[in-house]
Amino acid sequence: MRMYDIIKKKRDGEELSTEEINFFIEGYTKGEIPDYQASALCMAIFYKGMNPRETTDLTLAMAKSGDMLDLSVLGDKTVDKHSTGGVGDKVTLIVAPIAATLGCTVAKMSGRGLGHTGGTVDKLESIPGFKVEIPSDVFFSIVKQTGIAVIGQSGNLTPADKKLYALRDVTATVESLPLIASSIISKKLSAGSQHIVLDVTCGSGAFMKTPEAARELAKAMVEIGNMAGRHMTAVITNMDTPLGINIGNILEVKEAIDVLRGNGPEDLVTVCKTIASLMYASCFGVSAEDAMPKIEEAISSGAAFKKFKEMVAAQGGDVRFIDDPSLFESSKYVYEVKAEHAGYISHMNAETIGIASVVLGAGREKKEDSIDYKAGISLLKKTGSYVNVGDTIAILYTDLEDKIIDAEKMILGTIEMSETKPVDEKLIYEIIK
Amino acid sequence: MRMYDIIKKKRDGEELSTEEINFFIEGYTKGEIPDYQASALCMAIFYKGMNPRETTDLTLAMAKSGDMLDLSVLGDKTVDKHSTGGVGDKVTLIVAPIAATLGCTVAKMSGRGLGHTGGTVDKLESIPGFKVEIPSDVFFSIVKQTGIAVIGQSGNLTPADKKLYALRDVTATVESLPLIASSIISKKLSAGSQHIVLDVTCGSGAFMKTPEAARELAKAMVEIGNMAGRHMTAVITNMDTPLGINIGNILEVKEAIDVLRGNGPEDLVTVCKTIASLMYASCFGVSAEDAMPKIEEAISSGAAFKKFKEMVAAQGGDVRFIDDPSLFESSKYVYEVKAEHAGYISHMNAETIGIASVVLGAGREKKEDSIDYKAGISLLKKTGSYVNVGDTIAILYTDLEDKIIDAEKMILGTIEMSETKPVDEKLIYEIIK
Repeated sequence: MRMYDIIKKKRDGEELSTEEINFFIEGYTKGEIPDYQASALCMAIFYKGMNPRETTDLTLAMAKSGDMLDLSVLGDKTVDKHSTGGVGDKVTLIVAPIAATLGCTVAKMSGRGLGHTGGTVDKLESIPGFKVEIPSDVFFSIVKQTGIAVIGQSGNLTPADKKLYALRDVTATVESLPLIASSIISKKLSAGSQHIVLDVTCGSGAFMKTPEAARELAKAMVEIGNMAGRHMTAVITNMDTPLGINIGNILEVKEAIDVLRGNGPEDLVTVCKTIASLMYASCFGVSAEDAMPKIEEAISSGAAFKKFKEMVAAQGGDVRFIDDPSLFESSKYVYEVKAEHAGYISHMNAETIGIASVVLGAGREKKEDSIDYKAGISLLKKTGSYVNVGDTIAILYTDLEDKIIDAEKMILGTIEMSETKPVDEKLIYEIIK
Repeated sequence: MRMYDIIKKKRDGEELSTEEINFFIEGYTKGEIPDYQASALCMAIFYKGMNPRETTDLTLAMAKSGDMLDLSVLGDKTVDKHSTGGVGDKVTLIVAPIAATLGCTVAKMSGRGLGHTGGTVDKLESIPGFKVEIPSDVFFSIVKQTGIAVIGQSGNLTPADKKLYALRDVTATVESLPLIASSIISKKLSAGSQHIVLDVTCGSGAFMKTPEAARELAKAMVEIGNMAGRHMTAVITNMDTPLGINIGNILEVKEAIDVLRGNGPEDLVTVCKTIASLMYASCFGVSAEDAMPKIEEAISSGAAFKKFKEMVAAQGGDVRFIDDPSLFESSKYVYEVKAEHAGYISHMNAETIGIASVVLGAGREKKEDSIDYKAGISLLKKTGSYVNVGDTIAILYTDLEDKIIDAEKMILGTIEMSETKPVDEKLIYEIIK
């Protein structure tokens, strides 16, 4: 078998066999197939696509390229959740303890933030003492005891995907549905949970800009995961404006605490309840509707909040900060962005708001960058809100005085106004199983 | 400017600017742009093509990536000739001295053979003493004195093309019209001649399998060369069967001598006269029809043969071999391939015949392989010939006894027979200016 022939076959629109896909992924992981052949193949896949069978084979090959976590000792209710990215997306912090409260097993690995999207692991690390790097045996024993642990990606999981994603990132071959789907699902398969709920975001802050594109990706991922023997559910959610109010690590932990205490902004609460209900529904074989009262009870009873504190304590975090979020350190500068015109906010680009938070220190432009956990944005007015001149649209938190005006300009620049109230967009578009 | 954006732009079917193409070629030549980005771009070009302006820019950028030969001291009648490859293609050996006899200046660089196609430089080197590596000043003084010199590719000409071609060869991105056209024409531009005649071959022994594909490539190359200020002519010739009778280095030199002496097989003679007339017509601004009597006179008078000997002598070759080709060393084994069935030969794959000659030692499979100049095939019967059982179809010349049966099987295996005489194919399809 020669890589040349595999590239040519896909270039000419033919279907690759399982053996050819395995040959590529195994050879590429070992470094026997050079980057220049892999990038040519990725570009051919960009144009010619892959059918569900090929995509599943690619996913399985990448999943098997490194370690495969075996969570079977934790029972059959292991549940993972994945978001395709967004701004202000603190959903994992909220749904993981809710699901664990109700008997699901959340033994989860999460990622770090890059660019305009934040990462769960960074958010958790903003809690003083919280450890995301935990030896495997400790991880298992915490989950056995508490039903929950959220850690960083460890071990040699999906090295093929890591290598291939880095290559796609510099060769303009990221935007390919089979490549995106296989990248995401290979990681989920290797992470070992039996139940997987995918939050496929769409809109200006998401990778997929339209509900149609998100639906196509969601369907592909559900199909692959099912073929690989996992219980898959996907929900398509709106990420055209940031989710909730707060963007930035400590700010988002505080907002998650609000929701777990029964408060929090409506959009965030709705998305979290929906996703938590899908996690429960998958594990216990009930409908999402039947699961919903249990989710509400888990919040209103305080059990989910208690479970969150249990998780923080088990992973070394200082629970006093959870009980009293005012203990979190504050930024040097707190700056209010005021409305310059009156009217309804008809649109804002969520990605721009996300980048403004990075400028203030809340995120990374490059992997090596460090993060200021305190920094971020509270977005008091969002799309659909009416503002008067001088109303505070957003509060900026930063230690970087010279970045304040840049961030303000970005925020004011991306806000569009209208005299009439814009039509409310759907928050939850569709659930796909 | 970022290579990522250039790949993405072409990926999305947009036109690349001159600056972007220059950025790519300059950066790739210097090694600042990695192979994996170049191969992704080549695959995007494979699918999305390039318009004539982009293709011309790419050609010029590659031509300028290294040295550009300045032949202006040799006058305004410098003429180059290029074939897109074939089997038994000894045309340069014949047309170069004809053109030089008639006042054209042939200061030409030629290539070596690889795979099923031979190379002019190898054929010339099969003449004892003939030198193809000659210092630049000697090359110029020979051309000034005799009007002709044919040497190997020397100096740092089109390093971008060399690097890019090697990459395309292993990433299934060779078969792209703008990439093929720019590769060929960049080499011709850097080689410096003002007049360029392209022999664009088509059929089973050629890169382009149909006259239509050859026409498209010819038109693109003529357009680019004209845009770059050279006088371009292309002729589309049939390479569905090997050209002439002999395949192999010494064998082809002998056949060239035959033609220059006024003999030789009809197909080869016709192609050579046509190409020589186009070279003369371009240099002297006359029609090909008006040029033809001069070509015939150059051969019949013996002037072209004399010029060939002059070239051989000037480049150190032993002219006695030209006057008496029986002096050339012979192969250890001479084997006749006999017809097993009677009938008309309706088809033979010229590439297979070419590969059979490589098997016998006449060519290279890899660049590093050495060549047996004596080895090859005399193809006594070609497509359209009638054969009786036992007639000699081909004579094999080789020192490799154990390869004779392999070569015989290849030749007999590729010959198709019919009871009726096949329709004669055109030899010269079209002339494009």
